[in-house]
Order: sequence, then C-alpha cells, then structure tokens
Amino acid sequence: MKPSLNRVIIENCFPVLENPDHYIKKTPGECLVFESDLLADGHEVITARLRITERGKRSGTIIAMSLIDNNRWMATYICEKEGHFDFKVEAFIDWPISWLKGTQKKIQAGLDVYSELIEGAAYIQNISSKLKGSSAKKVANYCAILQDKTQLVKATALVLGSELESLFLKYPQPVVISTSPTYSLRVEREKARFSTWYEFFPRSAGESGHGTFKDCEKQLDRIADMGFDVLYLPPVHPIGEINRKGKNNATTAQDGDVGSPWGIGSKHGGHKSLHSELGNEADFAALIKKAKTLGIEIAMDFALQAAPDHPWVKEYPQWFKWRPDGTVQYAENPPKKYQDILPIYFETPDWKNLWNELLVTALYWVEKFEIRIFRVDNPHTKPFSFWGWLIREVQKKYPEVLFLSEAFTQPKIMQQLGKQGFTQSYTYFTWRTSKSELTEYMRELTTGLMPHYFRPNFWPNTPDINPWHLQGANENAHMIRYALAATLSSNVGVYGPVFEHAISDAVPGREEYLDSEKYQTRQWDWSASTSISRLMKALNLARKEHKALQQTNQIQFLDTANDALIAYYKWSLDQKEHIVVVVNLDPYYHQTGSLHLPEHIAGRASGQHIRVTDLLTKNSYHWREDKAYIELHPVLPIHLFNVELL
Amino acid sequence: MKPSLNRVIIENCFPVLENPDHYIKKTPGECLVFESDLLADGHEVITARLRITERGKRSGTIIAMSLIDNNRWMATYICEKEGHFDFKVEAFIDWPISWLKGTQKKIQAGLDVYSELIEGAAYIQNISSKLKGSSAKKVANYCAILQDKTQLVKATALVLGSELESLFLKYPQPVVISTSPTYSLRVEREKARFSTWYEFFPRSAGESGHGTFKDCEKQLDRIADMGFDVLYLPPVHPIGEINRKGKNNATTAQDGDVGSPWGIGSKHGGHKSLHSELGNEADFAALIKKAKTLGIEIAMDFALQAAPDHPWVKEYPQWFKWRPDGTVQYAENPPKKYQDILPIYFETPDWKNLWNELLVTALYWVEKFEIRIFRVDNPHTKPFSFWGWLIREVQKKYPEVLFLSEAFTQPKIMQQLGKQGFTQSYTYFTWRTSKSELTEYMRELTTGLMPHYFRPNFWPNTPDINPWHLQGANENAHMIRYALAATLSSNVGVYGPVFEHAISDAVPGREEYLDSEKYQTRQWDWSASTSISRLMKALNLARKEHKALQQTNQIQFLDTANDALIAYYKWSLDQKEHIVVVVNLDPYYHQTGSLHLPEHIAGRASGQHIRVTDLLTKNSYHWREDKAYIELHPVLPIHLFNVELL
Repeated sequence: MKPSLNRVIIENCFPVLENPDHYIKKTPGECLVFESDLLADGHEVITARLRITERGKRSGTIIAMSLIDNNRWMATYICEKEGHFDFKVEAFIDWPISWLKGTQKKIQAGLDVYSELIEGAAYIQNISSKLKGSSAKKVANYCAILQDKTQLVKATALVLGSELESLFLKYPQPVVISTSPTYSLRVEREKARFSTWYEFFPRSAGESGHGTFKDCEKQLDRIADMGFDVLYLPPVHPIGEINRKGKNNATTAQDGDVGSPWGIGSKHGGHKSLHSELGNEADFAALIKKAKTLGIEIAMDFALQAAPDHPWVKEYPQWFKWRPDGTVQYAENPPKKYQDILPIYFETPDWKNLWNELLVTALYWVEKFEIRIFRVDNPHTKPFSFWGWLIREVQKKYPEVLFLSEAFTQPKIMQQLGKQGFTQSYTYFTWRTSKSELTEYMRELTTGLMPHYFRPNFWPNTPDINPWHLQGANENAHMIRYALAATLSSNVGVYGPVFEHAISDAVPGREEYLDSEKYQTRQWDWSASTSISRLMKALNLARKEHKALQQTNQIQFLDTANDALIAYYKWSLDQKEHIVVVVNLDPYYHQTGSLHLPEHIAGRASGQHIRVTDLLTKNSYHWREDKAYIELHPVLPIHLFNVELL
Repeated sequence: MKPSLNRVIIENCFPVLENPDHYIKKTPGECLVFESDLLADGHEVITARLRITERGKRSGTIIAMSLIDNNRWMATYICEKEGHFDFKVEAFIDWPISWLKGTQKKIQAGLDVYSELIEGAAYIQNISSKLKGSSAKKVANYCAILQDKTQLVKATALVLGSELESLFLKYPQPVVISTSPTYSLRVEREKARFSTWYEFFPRSAGESGHGTFKDCEKQLDRIADMGFDVLYLPPVHPIGEINRKGKNNATTAQDGDVGSPWGIGSKHGGHKSLHSELGNEADFAALIKKAKTLGIEIAMDFALQAAPDHPWVKEYPQWFKWRPDGTVQYAENPPKKYQDILPIYFETPDWKNLWNELLVTALYWVEKFEIRIFRVDNPHTKPFSFWGWLIREVQKKYPEVLFLSEAFTQPKIMQQLGKQGFTQSYTYFTWRTSKSELTEYMRELTTGLMPHYFRPNFWPNTPDINPWHLQGANENAHMIRYALAATLSSNVGVYGPVFEHAISDAVPGREEYLDSEKYQTRQWDWSASTSISRLMKALNLARKEHKALQQTNQIQFLDTANDALIAYYKWSLDQKEHIVVVVNLDPYYHQTGSLHLPEHIAGRASGQHIRVTDLLTKNSYHWREDKAYIELHPVLPIHLFNVELL
C-alpha cells in the first residue's frame, strides 16, 4: 500500500452500479440525486463537487455537494440533454474555507486574530494573482485590508461577511483532490420513461383470411385514437416450415396452419426478410410511415432463434450445436423439447462473426426502416454480456433506439438485463393482484437502486400469458387491470384484441390463451367499441395530458381503510401536477372506504382545502378534511383525481 | 465495451470492503461465511468456487460454493492459520454437469438418450486422458460403456448414479471462467478477538510520590490475579515543560505539577525516550519481561503530537505548521486552543520523511522492547491513509502487532479507522446504558458488514471519560457496567484504580474526572479488595474458562419481561459452549422477570430439559420450560449461566 496524501475518503456512492460498464438511466426532466459518504480526519472543512461530463466532450457540469448529515453528502443534477455522461466525486480539504470558518469563530470568541488575518491574505493573494482588471483590483484590495493593522475593523467585517466565502467557493484552492471511481449515466429520450404500447398480430389484422401490413394500416387510426404511441408487432419474418407447430401448440401442423411467428426463418428468408403473406418491404415501410404521422412508433420483435429451415442453418452451421448423431440441437429445457426452434450457439468458436451478424441484423431494420424500438424475445436465454455489447453498439450509432426486455424469470436475472442496458422491462405486475402485492411490488420497483436502472413496463396480459385471474374474468376485471397498469407505471402495454373483448379462455390448467394467435390467425371485430376499450382510451388520454402519470417513481400509497380499494398519490417530475388514483380491486361489488390524504399533498398548508376533479367523469369535489369518503362501482372501477389547492 | 464470452455474472459479494486495499478481519477458529450473487443466462448449471490464497504463496484453498436461494451462493472458509489472504470467486458454466443433469431428466422421462450418451462420453474422455494407471482405466471404462449400444442398461445406471457427478466435480472442465475482484482477509492472532485490558498511570503506581516502572512491577501479580492480560500504560515519554498543564487542566502549571503524559517531548527526549522519573530502559524492559511471565502484554500509547519543547520541533521544524508571525501552530478546534500540544503537520512537503520517522518510532518499541500492542491516541485527527499505510508497514514485518483505535467521534469515522486496519476500536458502549440502547448498539456492531472489519473493545470508563451515569454512582452501578462490558464484548478494558474504588467525582458539568490522573499523580490503596474488583476477577476468570465469552458476534438477546433486566445468549465459535447472561441494570433495586429461552438453545430438542449453572455463585438450576423465573439483586447484578443439555 503506497502512502498517499488523500485526506478525504469517498465511499458508498449512490445511485451507482457495481460494474463500471453499466449505467444509471434517466430522461430529460429527471434528476440524478447523488449521494456519497465523505470522511476526513480532523476539523478542516471539506469541499466536494460532482463532475458530470458528456462522453467525448472535454468540459462538463460541476455541482457543489452539500452535507446532509452523518458524513453523507449530496448533489442534484437535473438531466436536460440526452446523452451518455460520466460522473464522479471530487473532494478535498478546503484550506481557505477552513481558515475562514475558524477565524470567524475566533473573532466571535473575542480572540486576537492578527496572525490569522495575515494567513488569510495569502489565500486571497492566490486568487487575485489569477484575475485581471477590476476584479483583480477588488480582490487585491481585500488582501491589503487583511494585512493592514490599521484597518482591523474593516478586516474583521470582511471576515465575518459573505464575500470571502463566495470568492473561495468560486476559486477553490485544492491541494490534493480525492476522486471517486467514474460512473456512468445515460439520459435517454422521453419515450424510455413514458410509452403506451399496443400489441396485435398483423396476420389477424384483416377482415378475413391472412392479414397483411396493408390491413394493419387500416387499424392505425383506431389505435392512435385510443391513445397508444407504440405498436408492437410479433415477428414479421418468414415462418419456418420444418417442424412447424399446429393450432394450440400441436406438435404437428396441419395443412394451412400458419405456425408461430417466433419460429423464424424458412427457404423464403430469415431475420432480414419479411413474411411474404404479410406484404413486401414497401408495404412495411408504408405502415411505419403512416404510423409515424399518427404519432405511433412501430416496435419490432428481436427474437434470436431459428426455425430448422432458417437460411443461417445451412449457411453458418457453426452457429448451431450439432450432436454426435449428426442432428442439430433443438431448444430444450430437459426433458421438454421445442423442435420448431433451434437455439443460437452464442459460444460457438465463430462467436465474433455470429455476434456481429446479429448486430448487423438489428441495424438493418434501424437503418432501412427507421425502426427505433425493439421488443427483445427471451433475452435471459442469451448471454448477458451479449446484450450489454449489442445495446451499446446499436446506441453508439443510434442513441434513440430503445430495447424492451421480455424476461419473466428470477428477479435478479431480470434486474441484470436492466443493468446491461435494456431500456424497459416486462415485470411481475402481470401476476400482482392484491393491494398488498401491488403495494409491495411498487415499493421494490421505485425505491433503492432499482428505479435508477430498471424501467418497468406493466402488461396486464401478453400472447404468452393469460394470467389465472383474467381467465373467465368479466369486463370489470379487465378494466381494473388496465387501470392499474396505466396509472401505476408510466410505461404500459396491452396485447389488445383479446383484452378489449374480455376474451380469456385458456388452455386448461395453463396460463395460455385457448386458440392462441401464436399458432393461428383470428378475426376480430375491429369496429367494436367495448367498455374496456373506452376506458383504455380515457386513461391513455389522461396519461397524455397529465405529467404526474408520465412517471413511475414519484408515488405514495394512501390508506383507504378497505383492502379492496387501493389508492396512490403521484406527482409530476416538476412537482406542479398532483394526481390521486383510487382503484376498486373487486370486479363484482362496489366498495367504499375512507381515503387518507397526505398531509402536504400538492404542497398544501395545514387546514388548506383542495379541489379534486375526476379526469374520467369530470366530477369535482371540494375536500376540507384529511380524509374523504370514497365509493367505486366495478363498472367504472377507478377515480383519477386531479388535485388543486384552493 | 468489448464483447466477452463470460456467461456468469458475479455481484454483491459479502463480506467485502469497498476499497480493495482494505481487508476483512478474522482470527483462527472464526469462519469467513462468504456469499455472492451468481447469475447466468439459460438453463445450464453453474459451478462456482471460492479461491483463498495466502499472500506470497502460489497455491491456496478452494471451497465449492453452493446455491442458497434466489441466485445467492455461499461458501464457508474456516480460518485456521494466521496470515494475510486474498480471495475471489471463480464461476463458470459447467457443461459436463449440465449434460449429466439434463440426461438424467430425459432418462426419467423415458426419452431415448443414445445421442446424449455419446456426448457425455466426450466429457469423460477429457478426464481419462489426464489420468494415469488404474483410475485412468476405470474412467476409460465409463467412457466405453456410454458409447456401447449393447450396454444401454449399464450406461443408464451410470448416468443415474453418483460416480459421474463426483468425477465431473473433481475434474471440472471450465471453458470460460468469470472471476470476481480479488478481496483480502487477514487472520490475526487470538488476542485481536479476545483481550482483557487494565489501564493505570505508572506514576500513580507507588505507595507515595512519583511512581516508577519498578512500582508498576509490584502491581503485576495483582493485575494478573484479577485476570487481565493486557496492561495499557498512558505515554511513558518525557513530558513537555513549556506550556505544561496544571492540575485539573489548569492552563498554567504550578511548581511540581507533573503535566499530562500526552504532552510528549522535552529537552529530555521525545517519542523514543522514557520519562526519567518513571525509570530507565532497563526498568521498562524488566516490567515488560515480568508482565510476560504472568501472561500480561504491555500496550504502549502511540500519541502522535508534540509538546512545544519536543526535540522534533527544533530538529524538524518543517513537520509543524508555522504561522506568519513566526510562532508555531498549536492544536486547536476553533475557538478552543491547546497550547501544550503541537499537532504534527501530516501534509508537510517533507511528509515522506515525517511518515517514515513515525513508522520508525513505532518499530523502535516493537523491536527493542518487543511491544506488540499499541493503543493509538486520537487517530481520527490524523489522515486515514496514514494509518492504513503505517499499520500495514508494521504488520508486514511484525504481523502480530495489534492497534487499538481511540476514536470517540462520528460513527462512519470510527468505522473508517477499522477499515484502514485498526485491530480493535473504542466504542459508544461507554454511553449506552438502557436495555434498548445496548440491544440496538449490539445489533449494529454484530450484524451486516461491521463485525467483519470493526472489533469493539468495551470500556466502562477511560481517563478521558467519566460518563454521566457513573458520576456519583454506587458500587453496584460500577459492577453493572463491568459485567455488561465483559460479557457483551470479548474485548474489554477498564481504567482501573478509580473504577475499582467507585471514585467518580467529576469536574462539574463535564464528563471529566475531578483531580484527574491526566494532570496529577494520585495514590491508591493497591492492597484493597472491593466488591467491584472481586466481581471483575470472577468475570475475567469466567471469560478465560468459557469460549462463549471469548467472542462478540454470536449473540442473541432474550426477552425478560422487564426493561431493567437485560439477557443474552452467547455460544462459542465451535458451538460447543452455551452461556446465558442476565444483568440487572438497576443499581438500587432488585428486579424480577421471566426469561424466555431460545427454542433450540444449545441445540436442545423440543421438550428437552436443561441444566444451568451460575458461574459466579455455582448455583445450579434444572429448567424444564421455555421460560424461567429470574431475580437479581444489585449487589450481585449478574447471572452467568452455563447451559448444559439434560
């Protein structure tokens, strides 16, 4: 251990990730509220600052850190610009400030400070020698006053005033600077934080037969009108013909069965081709273009696996595992086998070429079709380090590209994908139904380190998951689930058609939809308006209009005196908008309760009245007390109260 | 970010310190129970091991890690040998084990596994090619069986049996190994964990006049008889004569005043000299020698500051701060000034020579007088990095040297000194008196990361601290405080003479002793035996005989249904000895309560009876229930129950 003069110890930085390659995530308008322990021996004053530098730039932002308590310091950086930033703490013993504070105490204690004044003059001299013109003159004058025995009164006033402190803070004179490790922060576009996803199968978009991109185009107005801004399509590539799955996941397909779109690749092409029955590249481009005019981004599925007849299998056999008997290794989770899918062999000796081709594949859609959002299928079955690398490589060229992680697995695995760089993540919301489960899960997502690297996207259902509580559930139950998803989380998504129609028949004993669109086309009455879709539209509109719903982490749960009524208070990043949400979790009966409001809701003073306006019904109430009577019927199971002070 | 094939992510290692120069501390017999998160994509099996290597040695110990739950893994290293060790995690995807587990599941599901058997044979072949003789033959035979279609029954049995797994675990075949950072562990001598300190002023050791080392020698038998094994002496160096403090901290000394031994240095010498009134080097050596024969180590005070007449001030003026008026900078904490003491200027441009001289000073006593314990005065007013460096440099040559940190300051500062390498630390025990305070403080010291780097040493009093609750307190109160200190913490110390005689007069309004020995000599009746000293002796004896009291961290607090009765269960590192302590915190009244025993105390089965024997009174009780009636009178305020199963 080498001796070192660093006197300030920097420890327990927060929020930072353990791996220096990982980064904290924010969006413009969010704050990086940074904290760390700063410790020094003795009585001298520490000066500390957070230095934030955009990658590739020389100069950065410097924010003074301030002591909270118990050697804990903090600094707040308001994220404005998108980009990749590095940040670190710089801290040092501040001799001029230490001198100033010490001398002030001595003057106040009536001690003779002549010698101290001479000492201080040296610190001021250091500054004046660096200045020019009138400011140099002014500072030189301070110096003269301190050294002049005849101006003791003036000198004392100078020391007790605030000018010297400002001067010392503006022109610090560190001797030895301690620095923390360098950490990273990525400020991403707003959609990373606030997005409303709709999912459907393009092949079910038509009025009859196999739907096409052109059919999808026809649905865009409706989807936009419902307030969605991301349209996520399951894979649109050629579907494997060898070992194709039949309806309801039958091992053998019948003639005419369309197969699973996740069984990618056939003689017609692979991950860079389009399924011809959906249309050609011009059709796909037209869909993307029209969506854009309506404020909708198309999210593509990035599913890294191959059907047995994927062109890669012949062209790059080394990218797959071959068995001693000469057959190729199918996907399996012993003893289960998935014979329509070959996993990609990420550790192949040819892995560098493989990884590069996968990157090229992603960039193909980014560059040719301006795709800026990928929903990544099963990322947890591919190496974490692959994702860390791929996401960085894509974002290096196209920083606006977002990745949604479709991993429903162990908590730490899902967290790790967030740490590797996934912009958003599917969550356990899909299975959290009771008030206590929801409250506890939100606590987990919004406190500690998680909110700084893991952005939840709440989905009531997906084509893969027809959760137990929605199976055979009524319209109210569906409304409750979307209401929760859309108001708890600023990123929300729904696998639309079945949900809007409250169709939730399941394969017996499994959380799978019966007659799942994964294996067959279905026809939907796209013109129908259901009570579910009407509520979804109203909620999406409220989300667009109210910033308090455009963020997830500023949330406080409120007591309702009824376990069937969940209530929470959310406020916007700029703290100007305040919303209280109440949801009736009971899809059958009306529920009443007593809503306990936070003491300082919306910044109100003690005794101040508030007006709440339900954004859905437009009903308005004048609340004088800390408690309010609440009552919700399952046919409209949510209050969305905008709060204003009176 | 470079692409990498490391598939296993290692995170959240525990217990480890943030700074890689810092080390975890153990003693022989203690365990390093190490944990970390290990995450991999996909379904393959992870194999992980903790590798522990003594510094300077090539090969080390490898301990298999096992999965606890939720991707958390652990390994336990039993510390045997003293030394400085490095440890790290190595983890990898275990292809042979993954193959084995997968194939077992397939066999159990009745699937055809011929191809799998051929795959497995390759893994076995890899092993047999490395072996020789009969074991090579045996393994080659396994290989042959798996490849032989006619021996399918044998092959299946082989896969389902345990031999292949043992083989794969013994000869792992990692492809890419992920490793954690390298962390450090120091296994220190037992005294680091278990020590019983007695402090007195040598100059008060005589029957009259200024005491000497020879007088101290006379006290050794008594101190040894009382069960102490460390005798800590305040500084024994020449005491400054300029600005010497008088009795009761008077600014001006009167003729004959002896001054504070912490005002080190005069024309008679500095930190490498002895105060001549105490005796010469031969006397000091004789004291150390006699102490050693009685099992007592002498702990010296390492107080890095100088009286104005310390030889260093003239010889190395650059090691002190000089003011513009030509005077030297006294110690101060504005507006307070300590004019008998000059702080050392650790950041002097000549700091390397200064630091080296301080190291030489410590080594002087280590090498010439075989001093192996230092109590360090006010370490928190010197740079942390200085201590980290000095302790390592001393211990590099003399690993058995221990350092006790005398810092009573902010919690994180005290912790940081522990992290820098101090072996033991003074604590807030001195001010923790109520049951809830004691319980909470012990929780803080014995859970989380602290017990792995911070070893508490509990002192009821020091020459600097006459705590409020002891001022004017009766004998019982003193007994309670020593009883708590000696049974809560395996390291305990007491500033003896005043304590044994329950002398606790204070400077009014301050936690300072009146007529403090810091500024004057006092005479004690060394032959007197008080009820306090008798209890101290009994407790020290129990500590020597019972391993459950020789450790601090294995403790569980027990309910007593009375806030004046605190009870705790402690068990030895080897889990063979079990002790229940009950202390009456009320120095005036007897207290009764109901002691709630832990369900599995001493490993007892449900309904099993226990016998408890009070180690102080030798009374024995047969307890049949989970609860026991307890009653303690303040004249013997402690039960020390040795627990045995019946």
